[in-house]
Amino acid sequence: MAENEIAELVEETAPPEEGEQLDEENRLKPEFVDAVIGALAVGDEGRAYDLVEPLHPADLADLFELLQPDQRRALARAITDLMTGEVIAELNDYVRDGMIEALPHAAVAGIAEQLDTDDAVQLIEDLEPEDQRAILAQMEPEDRAAIESALAYPEETAGRLMQRELVAVPEHMTVGDLIDYMREHEELPTEFWEIFVVDHKHHPLGSCALSWILRAPRHIALSDVMKRDQTLIPVGMDQEEVALRFQKYGLISAAVVDESGRLVGQLTVDDIVHIISEEAGEDALLMSGAGEGDINEPIRDAYSARVRWLVANLGTALIASLIIAMFGAAIEKLVALAILMPIVASIGGNAGTQTMAVSVRALAMNQLTRSNTRRIIWRELRVALLNGATIAALIGVATALIFSPLLGGVIALAVVINIITAGLAGVAVPVLFDRMGQDPAVASSVFVTMITDSMGFFAFLGLAVASGLVG
Amino acid sequence: MAENEIAELVEETAPPEEGEQLDEENRLKPEFVDAVIGALAVGDEGRAYDLVEPLHPADLADLFELLQPDQRRALARAITDLMTGEVIAELNDYVRDGMIEALPHAAVAGIAEQLDTDDAVQLIEDLEPEDQRAILAQMEPEDRAAIESALAYPEETAGRLMQRELVAVPEHMTVGDLIDYMREHEELPTEFWEIFVVDHKHHPLGSCALSWILRAPRHIALSDVMKRDQTLIPVGMDQEEVALRFQKYGLISAAVVDESGRLVGQLTVDDIVHIISEEAGEDALLMSGAGEGDINEPIRDAYSARVRWLVANLGTALIASLIIAMFGAAIEKLVALAILMPIVASIGGNAGTQTMAVSVRALAMNQLTRSNTRRIIWRELRVALLNGATIAALIGVATALIFSPLLGGVIALAVVINIITAGLAGVAVPVLFDRMGQDPAVASSVFVTMITDSMGFFAFLGLAVASGLVG
Repeated sequence: MAENEIAELVEETAPPEEGEQLDEENRLKPEFVDAVIGALAVGDEGRAYDLVEPLHPADLADLFELLQPDQRRALARAITDLMTGEVIAELNDYVRDGMIEALPHAAVAGIAEQLDTDDAVQLIEDLEPEDQRAILAQMEPEDRAAIESALAYPEETAGRLMQRELVAVPEHMTVGDLIDYMREHEELPTEFWEIFVVDHKHHPLGSCALSWILRAPRHIALSDVMKRDQTLIPVGMDQEEVALRFQKYGLISAAVVDESGRLVGQLTVDDIVHIISEEAGEDALLMSGAGEGDINEPIRDAYSARVRWLVANLGTALIASLIIAMFGAAIEKLVALAILMPIVASIGGNAGTQTMAVSVRALAMNQLTRSNTRRIIWRELRVALLNGATIAALIGVATALIFSPLLGGVIALAVVINIITAGLAGVAVPVLFDRMGQDPAVASSVFVTMITDSMGFFAFLGLAVASGLVG
Repeated sequence: MAENEIAELVEETAPPEEGEQLDEENRLKPEFVDAVIGALAVGDEGRAYDLVEPLHPADLADLFELLQPDQRRALARAITDLMTGEVIAELNDYVRDGMIEALPHAAVAGIAEQLDTDDAVQLIEDLEPEDQRAILAQMEPEDRAAIESALAYPEETAGRLMQRELVAVPEHMTVGDLIDYMREHEELPTEFWEIFVVDHKHHPLGSCALSWILRAPRHIALSDVMKRDQTLIPVGMDQEEVALRFQKYGLISAAVVDESGRLVGQLTVDDIVHIISEEAGEDALLMSGAGEGDINEPIRDAYSARVRWLVANLGTALIASLIIAMFGAAIEKLVALAILMPIVASIGGNAGTQTMAVSVRALAMNQLTRSNTRRIIWRELRVALLNGATIAALIGVATALIFSPLLGGVIALAVVINIITAGLAGVAVPVLFDRMGQDPAVASSVFVTMITDSMGFFAFLGLAVASGLVG
């Protein structure tokens, strides 16, 4: 067989069918990823191209994230024409920044011009200011102006996130006029879900879901089908707030207005779902002190975020040690105290973390407000009493049997005291941080752990001394 | 002034303006909530009605959640005609169930008929089977059939969540035909974002965003504007998977198909955002063992979810105690060991929780797969080395100054060993649970804590003995 024929045969069998790349949970199969890596390793760019060509842009982005940095660059070289704006927009921030930094400014400018404003902004917002300027200088003036005005808004605000592309029409239009207008104007965005009706000052008056327009007769005025009751998003609103509004009111898109109430952009739910997921998922990371907790984050950043937290926890552990040191003489006399004391602290820490996780989530979802704080504290106190009684009975009886009844009573009482303390601290600490305008997920757990550790050792060792068990 | 006139004056000033009910973070103001509670307490139902009448259904639902159970019933009585399906659909599950159980079956049936299938299903799915039957018996046959067939699918699957109301048309239709069809058929759903094109067997062929239809000339065939590349959702797919698909592919709506590939319903993103937020937010709750962690959950349920976890943690704490007990003689000789040992365990526990939070999140987002597990373990190991070195230096020097250089060396080495153990366990444990098909958020933290606690005490006390520091 001639080489050509073999190449043709390979060509025909190469493109994998749907289902060859993804497993049942929609993840790229390791064998598929290995095949791409193998093709890149032997320099067979054609084979790599054929393998990844059938992938959806979002899956292609996932593939890049699974590769090592040098493999990412090799793949990008092999499939330049598949590297669409959609792929770039779907990439993890760190992976994208790493790849963008390796590209010449003109290439980045070319990619940015293909994208909607919001995605283009995301593409360059984390680059160094001089790189940003160099890239912007190579873009069309109109695109550049849109990006520059978006960059003028603070990070993580509606102004940064919004698309400037939208359909805004005057209220005197009829449904028929609008359909004609949309058919004639090719520069309109390709996908949108609602149109906005504005007055002569460009202030939004209402919005129309496209389904209403499609179902209304041509002669009906837009002002008769539009919904006047809108959720307007101020341009400076924080993305967390934006995400909550979309969730609460079930929005598909929303008008963004500037300080004077003019319509300046729109937000659509497909951009917001990422933020909803990010904001909801970050609490677990923040409470553990893992910073952004992104597995693509550079090691340096991960280290600096986490070590700060560990140092803070070292401080709280030292406070606990000071309390133990106060009772050094008692421990020397009765080593059982040293054996049992971590149990009291550990159970209290767990109970505190439970209550804290519940409170932080309820605060984030605006379910825990001044109106029901007292009721929730009372609720947690009752749960703590039940938990405390159960655990105290278990450990109390076991200790009584193994060591002595008095020590069993001491540890049982200490456990009850510490679980109740944990329940109160688990609500009160996050609520106090929230009222002080701090993110309750960030700082609460250092304080709650400090309280439950200290109280655990103090209650147990203190009761042991007070009960006459030692000395 | 006559009583009438006063009543009129009150009437005029009563309806609060926008901004009187909500604070800047979109939460109901406590003063507003208190005003409603006050009106209900004195039996002034008219005043309560006037106060809440301007609220959006989602805010009205929030108001119910903030009230005590008896206040909820009083408010529901005062504002029966404002209790629309939208309000009911927005209520927290527990609050809704509590209110629904208090209503007669006919009233529940009436509410369910107003709702889309998916919301109606949510309304009755948690009721006792006999209550469900009694309510369904009072509904129109068509609505009943739709709900019964949804209830036939397992909870938390696409079949339960989907709407049956959708627009499906044959591919030979033109854009003009479609617009005429939609104008003529009043029974179509009122709000939809895409239409589905099906073949004669009702298998989906493609979908059209409404914006493409509005912009295409009337004579164009739908098959020329539709998108053929669709994400089809099997009716049995778990809601977590559904949420990931919507997020990954930026979907607004998606076709749901049965086993034979027929189009049976649609999912729209406004229903999915709740699930995205729930699934992303639950990891923090699961990792702490707080169960569902809903502040509206009955105390009994919260107790039973949490105490199970605390008992499991009591078990791991006992293992740690056994290890300490092995070194009882050493502690009796050198009480400094008892004072310092909780530090080693506590720092290891924190480092382990950090790594675990990062791994659990990455697993949930499909970012950590077989293809990059080794790279991520290596990454976490390097972060652990840096963290371990830093913390070991701090505590080692402090211990050397206060106690002795040898004890400083022992604790520094023990901290390094425990933080590295924590880093490895923090990735390996969740990954192993995931590979065994278990939710890594649920069980990981008991095991990681057990490993870091035991290793903390063992490394520190063992090194103290091995170094000749005691005995």
